[in-house]
Formats: sequence, C-alpha cells, structure tokens
Amino acid sequence: MLMTIDQNSMKTFENYESQVRSYSRSFPTVFNKAKGSKMWDIEGKEYIDFFAGAGALNYGHNNESMKQKIMDYIQEDGISHSLDMGTVARANFLERFNDVILKPRNLDYKVMFPGPTGANTVESALKIARKVTGRDTIISFTNAFHGMTLGALSVTGDSFKRKGAGISLNNTVAMPYDNYFGNNSSIEYLKRFLEDSGSGVGLPAAVILETVQGEGGINAASFEWLQEIEKLCRRYDILFIIDDVQAGCGRTGTFFSFEPARIKPDIICLSKSISGYGLPMALTLIKPEYDIWGPGEHNGTFRGNNMAFIAGAEALSYWETDEFAESIQEKANILQERFEKIVSDYPELKATARGRGLMRGIACGKGKEDYAVKICSKAFEKGLIMETAGPDDQVIKFLGALTIDKEELNKGLDILEEAFKEVVRNN
Amino acid sequence: MLMTIDQNSMKTFENYESQVRSYSRSFPTVFNKAKGSKMWDIEGKEYIDFFAGAGALNYGHNNESMKQKIMDYIQEDGISHSLDMGTVARANFLERFNDVILKPRNLDYKVMFPGPTGANTVESALKIARKVTGRDTIISFTNAFHGMTLGALSVTGDSFKRKGAGISLNNTVAMPYDNYFGNNSSIEYLKRFLEDSGSGVGLPAAVILETVQGEGGINAASFEWLQEIEKLCRRYDILFIIDDVQAGCGRTGTFFSFEPARIKPDIICLSKSISGYGLPMALTLIKPEYDIWGPGEHNGTFRGNNMAFIAGAEALSYWETDEFAESIQEKANILQERFEKIVSDYPELKATARGRGLMRGIACGKGKEDYAVKICSKAFEKGLIMETAGPDDQVIKFLGALTIDKEELNKGLDILEEAFKEVVRNN
Amino acid sequence: MLMTIDQNSMKTFENYESQVRSYSRSFPTVFNKAKGSKMWDIEGKEYIDFFAGAGALNYGHNNESMKQKIMDYIQEDGISHSLDMGTVARANFLERFNDVILKPRNLDYKVMFPGPTGANTVESALKIARKVTGRDTIISFTNAFHGMTLGALSVTGDSFKRKGAGISLNNTVAMPYDNYFGNNSSIEYLKRFLEDSGSGVGLPAAVILETVQGEGGINAASFEWLQEIEKLCRRYDILFIIDDVQAGCGRTGTFFSFEPARIKPDIICLSKSISGYGLPMALTLIKPEYDIWGPGEHNGTFRGNNMAFIAGAEALSYWETDEFAESIQEKANILQERFEKIVSDYPELKATARGRGLMRGIACGKGKEDYAVKICSKAFEKGLIMETAGPDDQVIKFLGALTIDKEELNKGLDILEEAFKEVVRNN
Amino acid sequence: MLMTIDQNSMKTFENYESQVRSYSRSFPTVFNKAKGSKMWDIEGKEYIDFFAGAGALNYGHNNESMKQKIMDYIQEDGISHSLDMGTVARANFLERFNDVILKPRNLDYKVMFPGPTGANTVESALKIARKVTGRDTIISFTNAFHGMTLGALSVTGDSFKRKGAGISLNNTVAMPYDNYFGNNSSIEYLKRFLEDSGSGVGLPAAVILETVQGEGGINAASFEWLQEIEKLCRRYDILFIIDDVQAGCGRTGTFFSFEPARIKPDIICLSKSISGYGLPMALTLIKPEYDIWGPGEHNGTFRGNNMAFIAGAEALSYWETDEFAESIQEKANILQERFEKIVSDYPELKATARGRGLMRGIACGKGKEDYAVKICSKAFEKGLIMETAGPDDQVIKFLGALTIDKEELNKGLDILEEAFKEVVRNN
Repeated sequence: MLMTIDQNSMKTFENYESQVRSYSRSFPTVFNKAKGSKMWDIEGKEYIDFFAGAGALNYGHNNESMKQKIMDYIQEDGISHSLDMGTVARANFLERFNDVILKPRNLDYKVMFPGPTGANTVESALKIARKVTGRDTIISFTNAFHGMTLGALSVTGDSFKRKGAGISLNNTVAMPYDNYFGNNSSIEYLKRFLEDSGSGVGLPAAVILETVQGEGGINAASFEWLQEIEKLCRRYDILFIIDDVQAGCGRTGTFFSFEPARIKPDIICLSKSISGYGLPMALTLIKPEYDIWGPGEHNGTFRGNNMAFIAGAEALSYWETDEFAESIQEKANILQERFEKIVSDYPELKATARGRGLMRGIACGKGKEDYAVKICSKAFEKGLIMETAGPDDQVIKFLGALTIDKEELNKGLDILEEAFKEVVRNN
Repeated sequence: MLMTIDQNSMKTFENYESQVRSYSRSFPTVFNKAKGSKMWDIEGKEYIDFFAGAGALNYGHNNESMKQKIMDYIQEDGISHSLDMGTVARANFLERFNDVILKPRNLDYKVMFPGPTGANTVESALKIARKVTGRDTIISFTNAFHGMTLGALSVTGDSFKRKGAGISLNNTVAMPYDNYFGNNSSIEYLKRFLEDSGSGVGLPAAVILETVQGEGGINAASFEWLQEIEKLCRRYDILFIIDDVQAGCGRTGTFFSFEPARIKPDIICLSKSISGYGLPMALTLIKPEYDIWGPGEHNGTFRGNNMAFIAGAEALSYWETDEFAESIQEKANILQERFEKIVSDYPELKATARGRGLMRGIACGKGKEDYAVKICSKAFEKGLIMETAGPDDQVIKFLGALTIDKEELNKGLDILEEAFKEVVRNN
Repeated sequence: MLMTIDQNSMKTFENYESQVRSYSRSFPTVFNKAKGSKMWDIEGKEYIDFFAGAGALNYGHNNESMKQKIMDYIQEDGISHSLDMGTVARANFLERFNDVILKPRNLDYKVMFPGPTGANTVESALKIARKVTGRDTIISFTNAFHGMTLGALSVTGDSFKRKGAGISLNNTVAMPYDNYFGNNSSIEYLKRFLEDSGSGVGLPAAVILETVQGEGGINAASFEWLQEIEKLCRRYDILFIIDDVQAGCGRTGTFFSFEPARIKPDIICLSKSISGYGLPMALTLIKPEYDIWGPGEHNGTFRGNNMAFIAGAEALSYWETDEFAESIQEKANILQERFEKIVSDYPELKATARGRGLMRGIACGKGKEDYAVKICSKAFEKGLIMETAGPDDQVIKFLGALTIDKEELNKGLDILEEAFKEVVRNN
Repeated sequence: MLMTIDQNSMKTFENYESQVRSYSRSFPTVFNKAKGSKMWDIEGKEYIDFFAGAGALNYGHNNESMKQKIMDYIQEDGISHSLDMGTVARANFLERFNDVILKPRNLDYKVMFPGPTGANTVESALKIARKVTGRDTIISFTNAFHGMTLGALSVTGDSFKRKGAGISLNNTVAMPYDNYFGNNSSIEYLKRFLEDSGSGVGLPAAVILETVQGEGGINAASFEWLQEIEKLCRRYDILFIIDDVQAGCGRTGTFFSFEPARIKPDIICLSKSISGYGLPMALTLIKPEYDIWGPGEHNGTFRGNNMAFIAGAEALSYWETDEFAESIQEKANILQERFEKIVSDYPELKATARGRGLMRGIACGKGKEDYAVKICSKAFEKGLIMETAGPDDQVIKFLGALTIDKEELNKGLDILEEAFKEVVRNN
C-alpha cells in the first residue's frame, strides 16, 4: 500500500482536505515512518523531530517497549474500545497511575476519563469547578492555550482562535500571566481585582493555568508566582486548576510540572503524552472532596481507548526511578546553554532564551518576530522539525522527545544554528 | 499481566476512579477480551454485545482484517501520531474516502479532521456555520445528543447533562423533533417561528440534527420531515448540519443515514465507527463553498491518529459493493420483527418498537418507563449487553455490530425475551 | 416662547435629532397643546387621539383633576425629586394604592419602585425571579414586547429590535402565545417542553407575558389559556410574571388586565398610565414571600418622581367605584361593533377584529399587511392619530383614552372609516 | 392631604414597600417640602442637602425660574407626554441645547432621547457602539457605575449589584481605572491587553467611563489618563463613550466633565440634571457619522417627558455666560480646603480628600472604612443630608446643588465637622 503514494500526494491534502489544515503547510511533505526522535518522509529523507507531536510524544515515536505491549494486546484480542466499562487494561492503568505517580508524591486524586483530548479534560475541569462552587467565572491568563471546544476556547487567549468561535466567549476573565508586564506586578493586579468588591470581577469558580505556556510562547511562571496564585485561591476559596496537558508527563523535568513549586492544585488536566504512544487519551485528576459528579454527568464515546491504557501503563515505567528525571535535566542543561549561545550570537535579533526543562524557546525580539518562522522553515529544509509559538509566532519552540539522546539533540541544534546563520546572514 | 486482575478489580474503579463513571455501573464486571459481537470478562463469562461501543464498533470488536492492517502498520513503525501533518496513512484514507464513499454518491465535500471525538466534529461544524453566516443561533431539536463539550452540549437536550455545564448554554434554540407532539405539527412549528419576524427566534446560522436520535430514545425522523427541514434551510439560507456520528457509517443501512431521504446537508459530522476499530477519530465534511476556515483556526493534538486512518481506510472496503448494505437490511428486518413480537407479547408495558436499520429500540410506555432499566439489567446477568436510552431511560436500545451474524443476533434476542419474561412476570 | 416655532420646526428634528426617532415620522407635525382626547398642532389643526401615548394616557391628556393636584404640589414646593427617600407624596401613593387597588381585590403584594419606565419594572421582575429560584431561563412568548434595555429586550420578540442589541440575547426561550398556530395547541407545546427532561429547555425561573399583546399585534389571550399557564407555573414551581404595563391600569376594562381570568401572578409589572398624567413612573408588585431583595440591590435615580405620585394617587380615584369600569365596557362594545362592521365592509382586506376592552385592533390579512400603515397615514391627514402594531405593522391599533366620550369615539371612528374607504377604493 | 401623614408614615414604607428600598433607611424620615439646598420633613425639621438627588438636582430643589416655566406650561395645557412625537417643547429644547451647549463648544452631535433614565442612555450607547463596529465587547472600568438594567449593569463594577442580575453578565471586560494601583500603570495594562493578540481580550466595540466616578468612590481621572484612553481608542478604532450622567451638567465645573481634558468622545450619556428640575430625562449624544440607527430601533414610552424639556431648556440659561462656571469653581475651592482641613484634623482616619469641582469626597482609610457611614448618620441627625460611596461605603460624598450659596455650604460643612468630632472622639 505504502508504495502507491508519492510526493504528489501533497495534492491529496489540497484536493480533499479542508483549508483548516495547518502543519501540513509548515512541514510540506508526506511522512511515512518514525522511530524515537526521527521521522522519514516518502522520499526517504530523514528529519530530527524537535516537535514530538506538540508534546504528545514525550517518549519518542513508536517507543519500543510500548509497541510490544500494544502489539501483544491487539494480537490477543484485548478489548480495544470499551466506553467507560471496566476492563483489565483500564484497571491496570489506574493501579499503575496510583502506585507510580500519585502515592510516591503523596497526592490523592480521583481519576476521571473525560474523553481522549486535552480539550475534554479542560472542559470537564471547568464543569466540575463550576458545580462545586456554584459560581460562573473562570480566571484564565493572557496567552493561555487550553483547546478548541467552546469551553476550552473561552479560557484561551489567542484572538484569531477565539474569533473562530463565531459567538462571544463568556464567563471568563483574562488576567496577566507571570511577568506579563515585564515586572512582578501581575500577581498584584489579580489580587486587587479579587479583593475589591467593586472591581467588576466577581468571585470566580476557578483559576486555570499552565505552569509553562506552550502555544503562548514558552512562558515559564516562577515558582513564587505559582505559590502566590495558590495562596489567593485558598484565601478566596477558589479552585486551582493546573492544565498540565503539555507541560506535564515529564516535559519540564518532573512528572507534574508543578512539583518543584510545591503546590497542590485542586484539579489537574493531563493528556498528550499520558498514553505514551501518541494515542488519544486524557485524564482529569480531582481532589476527592470535589468529585461530586453524578454518574454520567459528563460522558463520551472514546473514554475507553484501551491501547492507550496499555501504552500509558507501560510509559509509567519511566517514572519508577529518578533516572529518567535526571536525564531530562541533563539534556535540559545542554539545550539551555546552546539556546543562550544562539541568542548571544545573534544580538541583532534581540532574542531571549526562555522556558523550563525540555520545554524551551528562543523568542525573537520586537520588530524581528518574523525571523522565527523563517528560521523554522529553513531548518525544515535541512531536516529538522521545529514549530513556532507565541501571539506573533515569534518564538522558536523546542518540544523534542524526553528520550532523545544527546547526539540527536546536538545534531538537531547544529541544524538550528545553521538555519539561524543562513536566515540572519541573508537579511 | 492480565492474570493479576481478578473480579475484585471492580474495587479499583471505586477506589481510584471518579464518581462520574457510568457504564461500569450498568455492566458491573471487568472485561478482558472481545471479538466480533462477543465479549468475555475476566472470569471467562461470555456476553453477546448489542451495544457495540455505543455505535463505535459497527464492524465488531477487533475486526480481523483491520487488525492485520493495524498490526502491520505498527510493526513497520508507520507514523502513529502526526498532528495534522501529511502522512501516507492520512493521504490514503482521504483517497479511499473520496473513492469509495463520496464519488459514488455524487457528493462533494472537503474533509476536516477536527479532533478525534464526536464533540470535536460538532464543535467545528457549529463554528464554521457561524463563520459562514455571521449569525449566532443554532437550531437543535428536542432530545438531541451532540456531545459534552460546551458547544456540543449547548445543542444537546438532556437537562441533567445541560445542568452539568454549570453555566447557561446560549445561542441555541430547541425545536420539536419529528413527531414530538405525536402528530405532524413539528415542522409547522419551526416554519412559523422562522417566518414570523416577531417570534423571538432570529434567523439562525444552522440547523443541526440526527436523522435517528440515539441517546434521545431511538427516534427516527421521517424522510418527508427531513426534506421539509432541508427546504426550510434553503428558503432561509440556513446551513443544514447532519450529525451522523451515531446514525452514520452504515448504522441505518446506508453509509450516510440521510441517503434514502435524498437530501444533501451542508455539513456532516462523522465519528464513532469511522475508524472501524473503535479508535478515536472524527471527520467534518463541509461543502467546498463553505470551507472558509483560516489555516489552524480550529486545531487539536489528536487530529492525526494514524492507526485510525489505517483501520478506517480498511473499513471502507465494506462499502465497495452493495452486499454489506443488503446484509444490514436483512438483519434489520429480523430485528424489527422480533421487537414487534416482544411489544405485542407484553401489552402491559404499552411499549412501541421504533427505529431504522440496525438502530432500533423498544420504548416502554407511560408509567412503565423503569422496566427498561430492569430488563437490561436482567439481560446482562444472562449474558447480553444492552443499554437504555431516552429522557426517562425508557427505551431498550439495539446498537449491535452491523457485522453480527444472524445466529448471534437471534441468540441475543432470545436472551432479551427471557429477560422480558422474568422481569415482567415478576412484577 | 411658543410663538417662535413654526411648521419649519420639523426641520429641527431632522437637523438635531438622531435617526432613531420614529413617531415624529408617522405623525409629521409639531404638537403644541392637548386636552382629554384631543391634540392640536402649532397650526391649530385638531386631532382626535386614538393612541394616547401608547397607553400612557389612559385618563386623557392633561386630566383636569390631576392637573390641579400637580399644580398645587409644585406651587407649595412639595418635593419634586426624592430618589427613594420617604416623602409625603410617596407614602400617600402607597396608602392609596393599597386601599383602592390591592385590598378590595384581596391581593397582597409588596410595591417596588424600580425606576420610571416599563423596561425598569421588567428588568427588576426578571432579576427577582432569578434570585428567588436560582435559575437562569425566562420563558417569554412570540410577539411579546417588554422593553428596550438588554434584559427586557431579551424577552421581546421583534427581530429588528432584538438585533439592535448588537449581542446575542440569552437565558430566554420564546414559546408560542395563545392561538399562535390558529388553534389551541400552544399550551400543549409549552407543557411538553416543560415535562420532557430531554427537551433542551430546562426548568425556567419565570414565565413572563402580556395578557393582551399590544406591540405584538393586539393579541388577546383567552382566560383559559392564562389559567393553564398559571397551573403549569404552580406545578413546576415557576414564577408567573404578568407585564401589565400596557394592558393594565384599566385598559382592558378592569384595573389589572388579568382580573377576569381569576389568576394571581407572582409578580406584576405596571407603568405607562400608573402615574395618570403621562409622567414617568413604574411599579413592580411582588408577592411578599418573594420580596427577598437586599436593600439597594436594584436602584436608580428616578424612583422618586413625586409629581407622578401625586397624579397617580389622584388617578386611583377613578377606581373607587365600579362606574369607570362600566363606562370602559360600554365604549369597548361600541368599538368592537364598529371594528367588526369595518372588517365586514372591506372583505377584500381579509381583516379580523381583535382585542379586549379598549385595547383593540383591526388586523389586515395575508398579503394586505401594508394597508394598515396606509390607512393610519390617511387617518392622520384627516385628523386622527392611530398607530399600527404587529410583526408586519399589519394591525391598526386603538389605544385611545379610557375617558374618551362617546361622541369623540364615534367621530374618530368615522374618520377611520373614511380613511378605509379612500385607501381601499384607491387601490 | 399632606396633613394626614405623620411620622408614623415611616411605617407605610415598611408595610407596603419592597425590601429593596434604600435611602429611606439611610435618611429615616418623611420629607415634605424642599427649596434650593434645603429640605424639610413633616415635623418641620430643616436639612441642608449635600446629596441633591444623587446629582439630579444640580440647580437645587424646585428652582424658581424653572418652576414658573413648568407651571405656565401645565396651566396652558402644553403637551405633557408625547412619546417621541414632535412638540414645541421638544423642538425648543433641541434648539437651545445646540445653541447654548454644543455650538459654543464646537461640538457636533446628534441628540437621541433614549428613555428617561441614566440606564437608558447607557443601554442605547452600548447598542449603537456594537452596531457601528460589529463587535461585542465593551471595556469598562473598576468601580464604574452605569445603571441597573442588564446592559448597564454589565459595565458596572459593584459585585453585590452585579450578582443581583441573577445571570452572568457578559460581553464586557473590566480594566483598572486611573490610579487603581496607586500608580500610573493602569493605562499600560490596558494598552498591553489591546496590543497583544494573545491577551484573551479581543478588539472591543467601545470603552465606557465616567471622568469622575461617583458611586465608585469619587475617583477623578487625570486629564492625561483620559487623553491616553482617547488615543488608544483612536489607534484601535474603538468608540469612546463618556458616561456624564453624574459628572456632567456642570458638576465638575464645566458643562461636560471632559471639557478641560480637551477630548471629544464619540458618544456622551447625559441624564440626572439635564432636566434641571429632577424630572426623568436622558440624552445620548452621538457623533453624526455613528448615528446609523434605524427608525425606532431603540424606543420607549417616556422619551417625551415635555415638562422635562421645558425645565431643561430653562436650565441651560445658567450656561449662557461664564458666571455660573466661575461660581462653581469658587465653591469647589472652599469645599476642597475644608475637606483637606478635616482630613488633616483626623489623622487617625488615614483619610484622603478627593474629587473635582463640586463632586468631592473624603475617603476613610484602610481599616477605618466604617467611619464614613457613622459620620453621615450622625450628620443626618444634625440636619445634613450626605451619602457614602465606594466599594466599602468608605467615602463621604458631596454632591450638593451647584447653586448652593456659600453660607449654606459652610453651614453644612460645619455640621459635617461636628459629626466627625462626635463620631471620632467617641470611638
């Protein structure tokens, strides 16, 4: 079968697929095969993948141990699709998640399967927060990204995507994210709006945030800021939701991105890499006292994607010792250093390096925003897959697999440097 | 691994999973294995499956030909997860879908991958309808079910689920579905509201409906009613959206449920069985003139579940000749006959048989609504999986695989009859 | 002063006033003086007034006894404006309203001064209904008119006016008014939507309606229908709001329009003629058990228009005996007869006579809608002020003063007949 | 008549009036008569009025020259109530307003009569701004007060009043008013939210603000801040609405409060003192290019309160020369000095003097908020009517008549000082 498709199959997408398609425009080829941090297109060209399914492939493409588990499961005719019925794979995943992730971190959450996408977990989190508190308003933050369904979109910052709703997005208030004004005032801003009964912002049901904003431009909140947010939530009895869809599952160096900030959110949203193999799956973790759902009050067909349970349970093996976390940190250091070097090598871009763990970016400065897209485009030509982020697409974003080896990492970074050189020199 | 879980693993769900879980309450066991129309739990008990993943398994569990294709694809390290990048599997699926489904039916639609769930396709349909028309309101119908995310929920009828939103659901108007008042007046009702500029219902962006309502209680709209709706849409320049998530993919006997009504909706929502193997996948089909999305205006991580493309392309083989459709019709006739017999055997239930194709139900009458749950519960004890539907859970619903063989079908129906007998006789 | 303005002053409105002006277009002259049911323009032309300030002048222009009371009050420097402070005039009005209106009718309501307009009383009614019930939705009816502020507009039917909001109007559901389909089905529709938990219409906070719709086209609900609505409200614990802004204050023959239907609404909205002299004033009557406002939770500057209290207290004198009500009935009979005669004289208009008491109209039939405006325009030329109503301006509406004498009434009707004759004969 | 009411008539309000009543609680007596800056209750006790109908009586109670005009008009049976028909009084008011106010200030606005209240003008302003721009969002400011109807409430800050809506208030965003954080940052915040396409705040239809916030606590915006807001509106093509309902009509020293800031808003809201005599009336001034209303797109019964036109035209006489404005300034200086003296005399209250023109307040400091209510209450006992403002009722507010003579002003301030002395010394 694979033989019948050639490079002309790009025409297939133009002919048959909606105008809404996006990444097949940024990365204009047809991919065929992938393993670890490498992808190959139908002409056999090899790419290093610094995008990793937008963070859904933290363990690399087609991770070998998970692959075996999935193949065995399929072979044995294990349940593929189960809605939210009880299955062995589901029970096993729940046990593993508790044993490997929650208990060792002294965390106590009920696990909800809200449907297979990040938007599903966000939608469920907003619903239960509103039910628990009886309040309407959700506070989200500037440049947040939480998803494309109406509820998730209402807490997302991007005005192009918001406009796509076609109706006004309500019951939410956008507050400045950490460092939004280039100083520490953002927490004071929020505090003032909450404490002042005349501010026009009533007591919210919940605050939702990403500890490191991905789509928003690789903005990493400081731990102090996160702690201050938690304090405000406690003072005013507001639920604290962490959307760890992209920053979680080890992306920043610990399983949950918020661990080093020593905070305990009331609700946690997980998706993307939770299944380990890029398979659709999401979890909503809810403090037991807030798990007041009625049976079936939120449901969905694809809450029982059992291959995802199988791979996801296996993926947790990475977290049984500290080794994996340490290896992430090591690579994060390399990445940081090299990003900082690039930044200092190209002062004309007024760029800054930013991020945390293996979620990092280079933000091109004021007036130089369009360099980011050009550099990523050039890098792609040279065999590197990287995407931009930020409201003006001004941030070159690294979201490579956590399992990438140092050689691949450095090789990718070499390509990136070349792309910088060619693009900047030519302008 | 599978050995370590025993029947006590029901405790796993109670201990670790959220209160929101539902089907693991209706079908209180732990399933282990499945094939075609059969499932087995960890104690080896066999069940005939008349539910088929709520319609996501129209081709049965772990369909053998798809299974082989998936295993080969995984084995070869084909791309698992690709966001919406170009892949061979995606191109191939698009080609197949056009060749096997659209072209032979003389249909011309652009294909959008809106994310992997039914709710995703509905959300995207509402967005593009609002963008195309510049209007806010969507008209949906009584007892509609379109999904749990905020936009999809706003066009869903069930008040318990709507309340779960925690905020008011707006920009939608519920109109009476065909036969809602037990007569033909529902189309007149809608017509009057549209033609009267003082009705309080402004010109809507779109009408969205299921041709056979599943969750709503197996209500099948007449073809005349569907044609009248289409006419109204044309007269007032309203987009016509068919949500074929459950009724599509052959469920009613043709690939699209609306084919025999000879209507051409502007937007079609597909999900559930489109992947063939129960894997999360959804499509939104949009008439080319309405495909005015900006690139990335709607996006999502799991738009490139390639195993689903592989299985989905294979599933389309069923539609290459008329044989499959004919076999559905044959079984539908059996089902209808036996349902009608049950209805007439138990006049005390004041029940009615309803539905179309292999989407059928027995609705217990006024005052007898609770029999439906009792009968399904009894059937489960006896090895048959069936669910209820309708606002009062008063409808026993058949959604078994389209590939079920007649023997299994009849065996399952025998169990159902026994369940009727025991439950009705004991009350 | 009055001398300096001449007929050219129509230019004043064109030059200085917003395009939004309306009645100065339908009645293109400059009025100078008025008394009872007569108005005079600056050229001395006399008009009989069958419009009476859209029902705000039920006791005629510049009613002599009220005029004296107001002049005395102003002369003595009685408080003009008092916010909602205690004043003698306010206390006196409250006492009078209780003694003359509420007690004799065995009604017990708390009186709220919600601001001086009909929209203010409607807005306050919706607020308190939502507060009492903790629910969002208000059920209103097709062709309802309740006002132009955002809350009042959200329960108004007219699509042109609704669109004027510039945003979507939410938390309301429009249901068919009595006889909307030309048969008795409308109550069944509402009943079905309420009883069915899958209808998409959740339990509302309140139902709001006019017993006779004025702007909507002089649609008079039957008493049976009103009683059925009340029963539904009681069954489902929904508050029942009567907007008696136009139909109240005697317009239909009794002080409250709903008296002959023997229903007891939970909240009543009054404005227009409550002040007697056309001065801005409104009341919201609330059953004591629902009067759970916090102090100042709803407020406004013009809640203490004391001249309106003075005139309003005097106006209540009309209701101390049955004489006034009887005289209304007598005139209503004349009006009805003559309207019916006109209808039968011009069968080509397929017109119908409709309404109740002195709130009556002639509705031109399908295809003949534009006759209504032409006839009113012709009548104006001949010295009669009448307006149209209905979604297509197809209804010629009588809202003349209740104090009109029979001679004036007949003279006005003679003019109307002539206008019919000229317009119909000329077409 | 007036004789029959005695001090027991306070019972009348308790017995018959809704719990929502407010000022009759703060000022617990029954007023009978008023003139200029004095009021008398039924026991003959005299009060100096520093509240002036919350700014609706800028020309004092029962202003003699307006009184004569009104009495003559009533006597001659001039039109009282005219909807929005043409009348001599209306034409005359329009001419006067243009001649005395707009032309000399080189301003060009169309005049809309939106209904008689401040909320009506705000609702109409929001509507037309949304219609002109085709956008939804309105930016309002912390501690704004614009009225109690749903649209006006949605741009009001007070959380108690907002909650009174019973539904969520949408399509608005609250931004920090000038000096909200005690520094100049608020304009930077707004700028940042507007310029960042990822901020979560889309391009708004309009900005609405009061140049001096009354209910919000006598917060006076600096002219620089107002100019910056205007610049932002011009840069982003946002309509700029000034709500001059309370701060206009000379309250701050010029007819429009924004004159000294040299800005030209697109829409201006006027009410309260525009009628001069405390009679309900409001205007919306709209730049001609934005006056795109359809006829009757916004309407209302009480748009033609002709007595208000008569008094309002006469009130404009105050603005024919500069004398009146100068006298306001003179008294404003006295007021400022004496407020500052009080503030320095009671350092324990950590109070500040604030405001502009004759719209001034003393804000009690952190932890001392409740002194304000106590002092006003004590002042009332001593014969002075003053209200508090601010989210914690912490501001003692002066809104006395602009026509107050210096002796009365000083006498009132003497009483206020005594009240401070007694309350502060006793605590």
